Amino acid sequence: MSLIVTGSIGIDSIETPIGNALQVLGGSAIYFAAAASYFAPVRLVAAVGEDFPEEFLKTFRGFKVDLTGLEQRKGSKTFRWHGRYHNNMNDRDTLSVELNVLAEKLPGVPDAYRDSRFVFLANTHPAGQLELLEQFPRRALVVADTMDLWIENEKKTLLELLSKIDGLVLNDSEAHLLTGKTNIVRAAEAIIALGPKFVVIKKGEHGAFLMHRDGMVALPAYTAKDVVDPTGAGDSFAGGMMGHLSTTGDMSLAGVRAAMAYGTIVASYNIEAFSLDRLKTLTRKEIDQRFARYCDMLRIEG
Amino acid sequence: MSLIVTGSIGIDSIETPIGNALQVLGGSAIYFAAAASYFAPVRLVAAVGEDFPEEFLKTFRGFKVDLTGLEQRKGSKTFRWHGRYHNNMNDRDTLSVELNVLAEKLPGVPDAYRDSRFVFLANTHPAGQLELLEQFPRRALVVADTMDLWIENEKKTLLELLSKIDGLVLNDSEAHLLTGKTNIVRAAEAIIALGPKFVVIKKGEHGAFLMHRDGMVALPAYTAKDVVDPTGAGDSFAGGMMGHLSTTGDMSLAGVRAAMAYGTIVASYNIEAFSLDRLKTLTRKEIDQRFARYCDMLRIEG
Repeated sequence: MSLIVTGSIGIDSIETPIGNALQVLGGSAIYFAAAASYFAPVRLVAAVGEDFPEEFLKTFRGFKVDLTGLEQRKGSKTFRWHGRYHNNMNDRDTLSVELNVLAEKLPGVPDAYRDSRFVFLANTHPAGQLELLEQFPRRALVVADTMDLWIENEKKTLLELLSKIDGLVLNDSEAHLLTGKTNIVRAAEAIIALGPKFVVIKKGEHGAFLMHRDGMVALPAYTAKDVVDPTGAGDSFAGGMMGHLSTTGDMSLAGVRAAMAYGTIVASYNIEAFSLDRLKTLTRKEIDQRFARYCDMLRIEG
Repeated sequence: MSLIVTGSIGIDSIETPIGNALQVLGGSAIYFAAAASYFAPVRLVAAVGEDFPEEFLKTFRGFKVDLTGLEQRKGSKTFRWHGRYHNNMNDRDTLSVELNVLAEKLPGVPDAYRDSRFVFLANTHPAGQLELLEQFPRRALVVADTMDLWIENEKKTLLELLSKIDGLVLNDSEAHLLTGKTNIVRAAEAIIALGPKFVVIKKGEHGAFLMHRDGMVALPAYTAKDVVDPTGAGDSFAGGMMGHLSTTGDMSLAGVRAAMAYGTIVASYNIEAFSLDRLKTLTRKEIDQRFARYCDMLRIEG
């Protein structure tokens, strides 16, 4: 079933304790689309500026991502982000951010995309997410991501968005900020009360937590020894999850759990190299092998 | 197979955001023994002072714990600890500590205990742990816990202990302190290089991580909505784990994983009330029911 993602494409500069990667391909929609493309064809709606490097476009074309909805806007500049990770590889500081094309009008949605059934609204201004959401009248499942910036400054619009989506994906610190609850179960309950049928709270190296009408699931991360660049971990997690969900259409607790596990695996590969370097060479067979090991790891024989 | 624990018994005063419990029963050996007693009879070696309340002794007697090795020492005072938890219920400050009887000579080991096969050296001075270890010549499995105090001040003795034990259980912050490694896999590898055949790194609300010669396992915590008092979570986790291990004798990766899962479940009950209040009423049937739900939660159907 057709899967679409809307969100940002960026030129990232990343500093980690291990090394730096300057002016590389990034952005929420990019990580999501690349990750989801292992499961299903992905449609992309996003805008870049005329400074967007041709080689980045070439990288996209290596994935099963439909780029009809990628707008290269004349006279505009691409979104840029520069961040530095702490020694723990979990926390990071934003050194600079240039919204550029993200601060302009939204990219257009091609007519051919209007029948999309599975919609992922990657992190951006909730007003933009609301506007894009309305362009998919045949939507069967809408999941959104958000961030502290919008929780703090655009809460009213964000609450309107929450009343219209099926699932929300966000970090534990964001769940706390949104609800005022430190306990993860209570935070998730408070989010469900705002509208979504399910919420996935991402905990970085500690895994992810699902609250669903049929129950709760806590899954660990796939333990990684060599974390090179955590950028895009959350977006590639969401991409793997939604990619799998869009092929099964199974929104039961077991269905979403399996999708989360696939997201966990794709994210575990993504952080092994800077930017999309690992996803560029990743194969579906590698995903399935690590997925099988992950499921085995969690099979407890009492 | 006979299980023995050596460690502290204390009079705790606990402050949490939810409420306080003053001068209640606590100590590493107490939480361990109570938790393990659901799986196997437990032998206890520990000392208290003459101020130790008779009602606390009564509480012990409700568990399947052999108290022959509990020494009530005349002229001595019981170990006391006063702590306050932060709002996140994970971090805590020690407001005061009186070592009292813990700073005196070790309690004696009854002759009837010398054939013990499974030995848990709960957290105390590593010199004491080493001395106690030697008193069990028929030991088949020795697991120890430790803490930041000994890592910082008694590292040489601690390293000698590590060369003589089979398993180490410690917190993630302690694993980092001991090895200088932030990555959990690298920290665990560094600990294995010091001697133990396996190491379990406890991550509080984020679960636990096992490194074993046959592989690695990350397990989430059993998600709790109502955390009343986290005191003893790590000790009751270790108690459930060692209790189960002592009944199966299965030290394979799968065997230790199942034991960790039982530890996870007992700890999840322990934190539902202050002191041993929840364990006092807990039944083996409740443990098995939650264990089954936990295993189901982690069974992913791809």
